[in-house]
Amino acid sequence: MVNIGIIGFGTVGTGTARILLGNKDIISQRIGFEINLKRIADLDIKKDRGIRLPEGILTKNADDVLNDPEIDIVVELIGGIRPAKDFILKAIRNKKHVVTANKALLATEGNEIFSEAEKNEVDVGFEASVAGGIPIIKIIKEGLVANKVLAVYGIINGTSNYILTKMTDDKVEFSEALKEAQRLGYAEADPTYDIEGIDSAHKLAILASLSYSIPLSFNEIYKEGITKITAQDIEFAWELGYKIKLLAIAKSLDSKIELRVHPTMIPKDYFISKVDGVFNAIYVQGDAVGDTLYYGRGAGDMPTGSAVVADIVDIGKKIVTSYKLQVTSHEKNSGPQTHISRLNSLLVARHSSLKIKKMEDIEAMYYFRFSAFDKPGVLSRISGVLGEYNISIASVIQKGRRVGEAVPLIVLTHTARERDVIKAIAEIDRLPIVADKTLYIRVEGKEQ
Amino acid sequence: MVNIGIIGFGTVGTGTARILLGNKDIISQRIGFEINLKRIADLDIKKDRGIRLPEGILTKNADDVLNDPEIDIVVELIGGIRPAKDFILKAIRNKKHVVTANKALLATEGNEIFSEAEKNEVDVGFEASVAGGIPIIKIIKEGLVANKVLAVYGIINGTSNYILTKMTDDKVEFSEALKEAQRLGYAEADPTYDIEGIDSAHKLAILASLSYSIPLSFNEIYKEGITKITAQDIEFAWELGYKIKLLAIAKSLDSKIELRVHPTMIPKDYFISKVDGVFNAIYVQGDAVGDTLYYGRGAGDMPTGSAVVADIVDIGKKIVTSYKLQVTSHEKNSGPQTHISRLNSLLVARHSSLKIKKMEDIEAMYYFRFSAFDKPGVLSRISGVLGEYNISIASVIQKGRRVGEAVPLIVLTHTARERDVIKAIAEIDRLPIVADKTLYIRVEGKEQ
Repeated sequence: MVNIGIIGFGTVGTGTARILLGNKDIISQRIGFEINLKRIADLDIKKDRGIRLPEGILTKNADDVLNDPEIDIVVELIGGIRPAKDFILKAIRNKKHVVTANKALLATEGNEIFSEAEKNEVDVGFEASVAGGIPIIKIIKEGLVANKVLAVYGIINGTSNYILTKMTDDKVEFSEALKEAQRLGYAEADPTYDIEGIDSAHKLAILASLSYSIPLSFNEIYKEGITKITAQDIEFAWELGYKIKLLAIAKSLDSKIELRVHPTMIPKDYFISKVDGVFNAIYVQGDAVGDTLYYGRGAGDMPTGSAVVADIVDIGKKIVTSYKLQVTSHEKNSGPQTHISRLNSLLVARHSSLKIKKMEDIEAMYYFRFSAFDKPGVLSRISGVLGEYNISIASVIQKGRRVGEAVPLIVLTHTARERDVIKAIAEIDRLPIVADKTLYIRVEGKEQ
Repeated sequence: MVNIGIIGFGTVGTGTARILLGNKDIISQRIGFEINLKRIADLDIKKDRGIRLPEGILTKNADDVLNDPEIDIVVELIGGIRPAKDFILKAIRNKKHVVTANKALLATEGNEIFSEAEKNEVDVGFEASVAGGIPIIKIIKEGLVANKVLAVYGIINGTSNYILTKMTDDKVEFSEALKEAQRLGYAEADPTYDIEGIDSAHKLAILASLSYSIPLSFNEIYKEGITKITAQDIEFAWELGYKIKLLAIAKSLDSKIELRVHPTMIPKDYFISKVDGVFNAIYVQGDAVGDTLYYGRGAGDMPTGSAVVADIVDIGKKIVTSYKLQVTSHEKNSGPQTHISRLNSLLVARHSSLKIKKMEDIEAMYYFRFSAFDKPGVLSRISGVLGEYNISIASVIQKGRRVGEAVPLIVLTHTARERDVIKAIAEIDRLPIVADKTLYIRVEGKEQ
């Protein structure tokens, strides 16, 4: 038997408890031992969560979980940085394994947490921290262990994907789609983390660390949200053969890694561009497997709870196994040991020497939406500046003539360098023929 | 260090060796120990496979692998039933772990093999047996361990999916699409296993055993291939809002499991219906995670090799860990133990009491293509018979009038029972107004 204590009885905590209690039989039948939900700590132990708990489980005091010598695994589900970090560190120092869904904490303070876990020879499970319903951590860490990862492209923020899908399907503007997302509970009252790419970047830091054996590098990730995308951009993109998605990208090129989150135009026939609504998907390209994609719900009590329980089972297997081996070795008095953990919590050890590329060094195709006055010679001026910076044009869309007024001028480029694009746009935006700041969207896929 | 011996140096054997040698450093960096490819046995050790092997690895004698006391894991990659089964059983009895890609063998003789493995306390890894590049075995067994599996829908035969995609995109008939598949190397000279659903059924037996804790039940699976599907059916299906895919289906309803492989109409907006060409995908619905889908290449040297190596790593971790624990326990003389395996090779132990439903008891919507003479009253006669068997009609398509000749009459039904459908069709096919045998395709998705 493995004893579990949960800290944080909110949405995910409730989902986790519901699974541990409701699927108890089927899980123990599968794994051959029992997982016992021993304590749940939360400041609010009165609220009805619609779930019947065995008596005496609830406590207001996290220390009842952290200091209970019988509890093997502490599940941190309160989110945020403090006091979550203190609880996790205390659990680790008390030689307890930890399972957490806290992507913000891991992305920003994970290096310290994993190093502390390694020192104390305990495991930290974090399957639930990225794309809840998709077992992507296990897939990358174990399923694709034989591969050099070439690229990871993730739609890993359901809120943004819902908003972009809504803008695409109903041809509405960002603000209206956001309001609808909030009404449906897909976006929070303060949606900043979701729509500005911060949440995606938290998750990308974790995925990239796993895929490339690099330290968690949240600060080095380029982050750009979806707030400037208009319904018109989505239409122009479609006309050019693309859909616009908020992508979290990690890819290796010339022994450097690109880490970036931004709205991205993807060819509409790519499988990942068909991922709509609140669904998440992660495309992983490995040198051996080639193209793979994993699709499911990224959030919610039960999908995230499913990931939490999968981690509990994995760690539980190791606890039970090492204990069995101990017993087999007739050393019953030394208690369960957990040397196995070193093989699994690998977000610290043995970092590769890969460097992260500066954003200005990346290369991509670009979509530009210039806001130019409708006058003769405008395209020639703009393309002249682009040419000076070695940016060559693949297609142009110019629609809606309104002489003397500002109209959108759409340009799709061949592969160009971000550094050159920034300079060219700065110069173009100073031209008197340009009415407003130029919007640009990076384009993935093959040159057409 | 963990020592590996491969038996079978064909396509997958070569891919596996290429990964073990080419990605050796990245893999040991990740897992913390070395995997050593010690021997490869094959009848042909002369042929140039375009890979440089360390000297002395190749042997013509499988016993050089099976009897080598240093080899920890035997990788069986020759395929077929004999002598693969003998090699695997010998390896198991020599207390060696086994990794195999042999779906036909596992589906038909797996119960015996897994039971022998359990008796000898060794592991049998079979990630490569289903959907090569997709780590679906691990996903179901570990990633979704917290879930009651409600349904599994797999496009798990690349050949059939290529043929159906080709028929859809280029509006060609089956025989032409098959020829193209053979020309491109996607179909074998004798394509029976692929196009008759047998290969899909092998894989479904494995997936269902994992998902529902039932014995491997290949014989109980209903198998129907794609040879009777015409380009016209694909067009009619599209008109009705569906695509036709060869699906392997396992789903639980009323404590019974349906196991069936047949051409299936799926609503064209379902994510799985967008899986085209030689790609594979498995949709898994769990009670906690909801809808998930996993997509990648189902075959090929490197994707399958990637799965083989993932199994080697998993088993290797257990070997190394149990050895470490032994050393820790100062019992160095007892050698590595493998009690852990009991927790993992779970295709035998603790079977659930779920029963497999008889095919005639399943319920579905149905697409009928009647070949009826173009006379007044035909629809009324046919719908009369359907009505007698409680089969009610959702839509009808009748096109191309050729009075007195046989024309296709398409009927889409509401949910009906297979048993009734069989009887009704037998009766209809005896009517003088019917020119040819009626084709029917089961339809998945919500009632429209």
